Amino acid sequence: MKDSLKLVVIGGGSSYTPELVEGIINNFDRLPIKELWLVDIPQGEHKLNIVGKLAQRMVEKSGLPIDVKLTLDRLEALPNADFVSTQIRVGLLEARAHDESIPLKYGVLGQETTGPGGMMKAFRTIPVLLDICKDIEKLCPNAWMLNFTNPAGMVTEAINRYSNVKSIGLCNSPIGVYKWLSKLYEVPTDRIYAEFVGLNHLHWVTQVTVDGESKLEELLESGESYTAKNVPGMDWNAKLIRSIGAIPSYYLRYFYLTKEMYAEQVAAMEKDGSRAIIVKRVEDELFELYKDPNLSIKPKQLEKRGGAYYSEAAVNLMVSLHNDTRDIQTLNVPNGNILPFLPADASIEVNCVVSKQGPMPVTVRNIPQGVTGLIHAVKTYERLAIDAAVTGDRDLALQALTCNPLVPSVRVAEEILNEMLEQNKDYLPNFFK
Amino acid sequence: MKDSLKLVVIGGGSSYTPELVEGIINNFDRLPIKELWLVDIPQGEHKLNIVGKLAQRMVEKSGLPIDVKLTLDRLEALPNADFVSTQIRVGLLEARAHDESIPLKYGVLGQETTGPGGMMKAFRTIPVLLDICKDIEKLCPNAWMLNFTNPAGMVTEAINRYSNVKSIGLCNSPIGVYKWLSKLYEVPTDRIYAEFVGLNHLHWVTQVTVDGESKLEELLESGESYTAKNVPGMDWNAKLIRSIGAIPSYYLRYFYLTKEMYAEQVAAMEKDGSRAIIVKRVEDELFELYKDPNLSIKPKQLEKRGGAYYSEAAVNLMVSLHNDTRDIQTLNVPNGNILPFLPADASIEVNCVVSKQGPMPVTVRNIPQGVTGLIHAVKTYERLAIDAAVTGDRDLALQALTCNPLVPSVRVAEEILNEMLEQNKDYLPNFFK
Amino acid sequence: MKDSLKLVVIGGGSSYTPELVEGIINNFDRLPIKELWLVDIPQGEHKLNIVGKLAQRMVEKSGLPIDVKLTLDRLEALPNADFVSTQIRVGLLEARAHDESIPLKYGVLGQETTGPGGMMKAFRTIPVLLDICKDIEKLCPNAWMLNFTNPAGMVTEAINRYSNVKSIGLCNSPIGVYKWLSKLYEVPTDRIYAEFVGLNHLHWVTQVTVDGESKLEELLESGESYTAKNVPGMDWNAKLIRSIGAIPSYYLRYFYLTKEMYAEQVAAMEKDGSRAIIVKRVEDELFELYKDPNLSIKPKQLEKRGGAYYSEAAVNLMVSLHNDTRDIQTLNVPNGNILPFLPADASIEVNCVVSKQGPMPVTVRNIPQGVTGLIHAVKTYERLAIDAAVTGDRDLALQALTCNPLVPSVRVAEEILNEMLEQNKDYLPNFFK
Amino acid sequence: MKDSLKLVVIGGGSSYTPELVEGIINNFDRLPIKELWLVDIPQGEHKLNIVGKLAQRMVEKSGLPIDVKLTLDRLEALPNADFVSTQIRVGLLEARAHDESIPLKYGVLGQETTGPGGMMKAFRTIPVLLDICKDIEKLCPNAWMLNFTNPAGMVTEAINRYSNVKSIGLCNSPIGVYKWLSKLYEVPTDRIYAEFVGLNHLHWVTQVTVDGESKLEELLESGESYTAKNVPGMDWNAKLIRSIGAIPSYYLRYFYLTKEMYAEQVAAMEKDGSRAIIVKRVEDELFELYKDPNLSIKPKQLEKRGGAYYSEAAVNLMVSLHNDTRDIQTLNVPNGNILPFLPADASIEVNCVVSKQGPMPVTVRNIPQGVTGLIHAVKTYERLAIDAAVTGDRDLALQALTCNPLVPSVRVAEEILNEMLEQNKDYLPNFFK
Repeated sequence: MKDSLKLVVIGGGSSYTPELVEGIINNFDRLPIKELWLVDIPQGEHKLNIVGKLAQRMVEKSGLPIDVKLTLDRLEALPNADFVSTQIRVGLLEARAHDESIPLKYGVLGQETTGPGGMMKAFRTIPVLLDICKDIEKLCPNAWMLNFTNPAGMVTEAINRYSNVKSIGLCNSPIGVYKWLSKLYEVPTDRIYAEFVGLNHLHWVTQVTVDGESKLEELLESGESYTAKNVPGMDWNAKLIRSIGAIPSYYLRYFYLTKEMYAEQVAAMEKDGSRAIIVKRVEDELFELYKDPNLSIKPKQLEKRGGAYYSEAAVNLMVSLHNDTRDIQTLNVPNGNILPFLPADASIEVNCVVSKQGPMPVTVRNIPQGVTGLIHAVKTYERLAIDAAVTGDRDLALQALTCNPLVPSVRVAEEILNEMLEQNKDYLPNFFK
Repeated sequence: MKDSLKLVVIGGGSSYTPELVEGIINNFDRLPIKELWLVDIPQGEHKLNIVGKLAQRMVEKSGLPIDVKLTLDRLEALPNADFVSTQIRVGLLEARAHDESIPLKYGVLGQETTGPGGMMKAFRTIPVLLDICKDIEKLCPNAWMLNFTNPAGMVTEAINRYSNVKSIGLCNSPIGVYKWLSKLYEVPTDRIYAEFVGLNHLHWVTQVTVDGESKLEELLESGESYTAKNVPGMDWNAKLIRSIGAIPSYYLRYFYLTKEMYAEQVAAMEKDGSRAIIVKRVEDELFELYKDPNLSIKPKQLEKRGGAYYSEAAVNLMVSLHNDTRDIQTLNVPNGNILPFLPADASIEVNCVVSKQGPMPVTVRNIPQGVTGLIHAVKTYERLAIDAAVTGDRDLALQALTCNPLVPSVRVAEEILNEMLEQNKDYLPNFFK
Repeated sequence: MKDSLKLVVIGGGSSYTPELVEGIINNFDRLPIKELWLVDIPQGEHKLNIVGKLAQRMVEKSGLPIDVKLTLDRLEALPNADFVSTQIRVGLLEARAHDESIPLKYGVLGQETTGPGGMMKAFRTIPVLLDICKDIEKLCPNAWMLNFTNPAGMVTEAINRYSNVKSIGLCNSPIGVYKWLSKLYEVPTDRIYAEFVGLNHLHWVTQVTVDGESKLEELLESGESYTAKNVPGMDWNAKLIRSIGAIPSYYLRYFYLTKEMYAEQVAAMEKDGSRAIIVKRVEDELFELYKDPNLSIKPKQLEKRGGAYYSEAAVNLMVSLHNDTRDIQTLNVPNGNILPFLPADASIEVNCVVSKQGPMPVTVRNIPQGVTGLIHAVKTYERLAIDAAVTGDRDLALQALTCNPLVPSVRVAEEILNEMLEQNKDYLPNFFK
Repeated sequence: MKDSLKLVVIGGGSSYTPELVEGIINNFDRLPIKELWLVDIPQGEHKLNIVGKLAQRMVEKSGLPIDVKLTLDRLEALPNADFVSTQIRVGLLEARAHDESIPLKYGVLGQETTGPGGMMKAFRTIPVLLDICKDIEKLCPNAWMLNFTNPAGMVTEAINRYSNVKSIGLCNSPIGVYKWLSKLYEVPTDRIYAEFVGLNHLHWVTQVTVDGESKLEELLESGESYTAKNVPGMDWNAKLIRSIGAIPSYYLRYFYLTKEMYAEQVAAMEKDGSRAIIVKRVEDELFELYKDPNLSIKPKQLEKRGGAYYSEAAVNLMVSLHNDTRDIQTLNVPNGNILPFLPADASIEVNCVVSKQGPMPVTVRNIPQGVTGLIHAVKTYERLAIDAAVTGDRDLALQALTCNPLVPSVRVAEEILNEMLEQNKDYLPNFFK
């Protein structure tokens, strides 16, 4: 087994980086990352330097033989990498602010990964990541690419269908479910098992066991569920949940409570502006902290940022890939036959045994009838949108958006699309050739 | 081959019956129906007598040896029937008026077969038809049941899943497509072929040929399509249709133009009342005409009623079943493997070779990616609703309605459901045990 | 609709050609083939001239405006063809004689299309036909290719998988079944319907109706079945057939009666030599007849040749493709979802609706459990053998032959393969690069 | 978690029992089996007493609080059992001797689990086990049934399809593969991963990793493979194996080397009599040893018996089920979608994550094309044979045997079947009603 690993972080100037660095330091014995490259684009140089220096101070404090390198040229960083992680935000938070606000004007939810906002993020992001993949194919074809970049399900599927890179999509939400259950039942997470059915940001938990005993019935009765900070915690209808027979991801509020979530967004927008603006404020504060040359640990305040457990997810995955642990993690991978109504190459979120050869999905025991239609509807939108992102075909983009269950008509879809494409013009060369 | 056939029409007092009688008279040489039983319930006795006498006058005029019998007791009519056709309306047009008006109050489309109104019609109808099926199983187990009763796709699936009756679902919409194309291209319908993909009231025409030459591209370019009188003819977005690559059923306006169709309904309701009320007026006029003892043909005015081609669809199907013609008709039958993402027992609308042994679906060449999600979403709603209709499970009804793509949230679903169940109390013994 | 069609017959010097010419003459009103090109290779020039002149005399006698052209250069013949039919025999009957005799030495059935002999015929034929396909792609890409060349199922699949030519595989065996039933029930074939499940030369008839009434049970009881002249008519075991619930193709004797058919072959070989030698004798006699300048009709003796109904199958198919008749014919086409356990691109033999756009398979109602394993085993062999034919990979050829259910071990497979490859060296450039 | 478990061993008088007892003793800390019931039939009382007393002495020596109980009445043993394991041999070794010798007379392989012998063993065993299952359903419905009884794949499938017992099929062969690899690469088994595709006694190893690095290519090149003592270790053809791309189970020699294995069996039979007779001799010796009142450990000689690792397989499975370990074991479970060409309820041998809720199959990465046909052919035979065992339908039995790839014709099948049914008359009440 290799005793020296190289990790390249694309979008290394992200405010999340210190969390990842902390994870790397804490797991060095199982995951000897000795080269850590933080890569960013020229516009991100300032932030890269701030974060990079903090990372270097953290490593120095740890006393571990980890070399943190900063670069604006990924071609310098990629050769022979073992892992490449991506956490980029094309158009920065400013673009996100538009993703969140424009749809609202047309009566449609505005959200970073769901609905028109998610599609626009996919349009900006997919071509950039496919370019990165071309470099990975040449410079480090055996590397595992860990994709955190949202919308992670669509991005991962795009990479799997349009490149030869070995890519795995990751989300902090499944870990969040385990943490919630761990707290609820007062047992460590390794005594819990949760079965996930669905897509990224569109999963249902169809089984929960503690020490192997099912807790599903009591959880369905209690109506309790896990909600992350970035999605308002509106109450589910307990009858619906019991009838489905599975615990929905908090993102499913956008689908089961569309009308009410829209109203909440409109109210929140009026009160505080878009969530992007709030996040921007948190980020600015974080970077102020990061600048402090005496800071050599991850600051507490990072937890407010909303990406809890990202580092844990990433490190867990790398540890398992490196050590061939064959433990089970919830990942975004090609469907195969797991959900038999979806194409084999559709990315789904599912429990996988993680070996050095990569993730092997574990059969799901139970696919509740009531969830199949929504999964298929959203996946249909996703596949059309991925193809539109790659080709720049506007009619396809219109079809994709019309197929999105949150959009109430093709006419509304067209109005939103026209404004959003125009707004994102600078980031959409495929659509403005 | 039998030279004497018996047809039992359940709901024989319907205003449509004269059209059917005309079809039977005109096709007597290929379809020797010598016993025609018109069956209705006691509340429909008055109408049954009016329609029945007209039918008798029509037959008399034809000089054919057809015996028209009227009864309020289906047990008298069913023994040894060759065909049973159903055209019932549980709750009459009054119930339909509520189906159409109640959802509008909650911001949701009100329609006879689509959305909450269609679900309520299914709830009223399915248990009644399953009772009829029990009698058919005993009294004429070899009969073919032709089901016109809406929502025809759901009702047919319910019968296929919950009874042993040989049932086929029928709709006038596919014949309408052929008639439209025939007029457009000025050729008889037998030189036209159209391929249908989808469900009842939710199909797309994925291929059109005239003398075997494809006309699909030019039709997609032209943006022309077929619309029946009962659905407002709002313009499609031509870019969407071209991008899908198939011609949508006019019912798909409810899904692709939800917002605009809702607005149209609200305006129409304010102006003219619900469509049920308009239909009621037409029906009343028809029955006035039917009463005329000098009338012995189908009156022209029946065409306004909206059910054009129903008789043609029914007679065509019986002719082919009786004569083993093995021609192709578009029918509602169990899916098998035709749409591989749906369960085998889901009813779909598809071209079938019709033999005496029943319909054999013909493989579809092309399932456009963009239609799969919506088909699956609607079928998921349909299956949950069918199960709710059979069991009277309110939570399941709530889940079904929430899964309907036209309903914007579980809370709205619950409000609509509560009012509609209460309104339909008298017709829903399963839900009010 | 075109009023002038062009047919190119590859292998036009075949003794079958007069039958095809007769069919063309008799169907001229529905199928106006005005150019008939007979193409052969230089070694076949002598036979081409004899057959070609007979064809010209037949056409002349008919008085129809059909131009019969002979050529040794297919590039001259193919441009703008509407139909291309292939009836070639790479290596001639001499090669067939080896296909039939060599396996016998190793205790294995020797047969033209089944077992090692069939594989060797596929190896000789597939590369030649793929070369022809390349010319068709360039010179007449819209032509329909009718493939009669055996093993027709494998050859058709190879063309569908490795070229873009629109190809349909044809066999006389399904028509034979209809003729047999027509005689048995004394009704014309159009009142009969037979459902076929399986592969070319490996089908089961799972339903038979006369005027739509099932005759399956009585046929299974009677133990009667159809057998062509080229396969010995050994008795089935009636219990087996009843238990399967379907009537096997006469070719299935090679699988259900392997031991006894082998013994029969060994005895026949000792008595009369291989079947190829018998056929050679018939052919020589036919060509003597064909030479007669006074002969201007198809001679009766051709019927002994064994390819009865080939012309009928070909003409029926061309008539339906040309006229968009949408009648049902039994053809070899890609599987799609018809047999859900086989790959979508596997060629199967199945009832199809034949339109101008090509054949559309009709769903099979019933796949008896007991036939699935044998179909899959033989198709697995076929797919490996097709890939071996295309690549010339000897290990793959060995794997294919070992997977053939008639071959009792890999060691036997290797011995047979070594001798047969060596014997066929001149015709297997892919294997002797 | 329960701290006191109850295991019932059906067929407890087996010579294997001491191995199982040793395993239970050694794993008591993880698997607190405090009640161990050994159940046998009256004819087995003598052996049960011998083995039972040895078991009691072993437990006594261990000092653990394990209560070993002997009974001839399973109704006494089953109530509230946590685990039931079955290791029965209906007809004893005498019946096996006939299974092995009769087919040889007809030119067909005689083997305990494969071919006609395996079918006859299934016929004797399945009805007995289904009777036991009825008792389990009543007396301990939550128990896990561990089935070792051969043919384990067929028996497990029969139980899954015809009872409600939670049953898992087990074989020592996959553990054997791990042990072989462990020795070959000189690493402990937990650093090895092998992927299995296929059925019980009909699997291929499609991937082998050591510390996550693939060793498949080098193993295929080397031609090495694992062989247990009970199957002659005839050399594979290396070209075949490389071309398949997977390492076949040693049982696959019966299919890839049918002719040679038959010859070997005939020779061995002449020399030593059937394998049953050899085993009988070993067993007699073992029971002599077991009688020794001073023996309180598993005697070394048991290893010669051929069932190596059975105890390990059983204990591993019970430990994981009890402790919800979620490690990976190779088990016989219903297929689901794993092998998409087989029915969902077909039992397959596949890697599973074992939780307290039972095994969850792990997706296989790679199904070599060349293995699908043989798997499907054998599974088709198995399913027909299972149905014949349950119904006693002789025609179905004939169909099953004819579909077995080792049987060369229906006539041979009928001869074998007649003799074997007659020979087994006393054990086949379903066939001799």
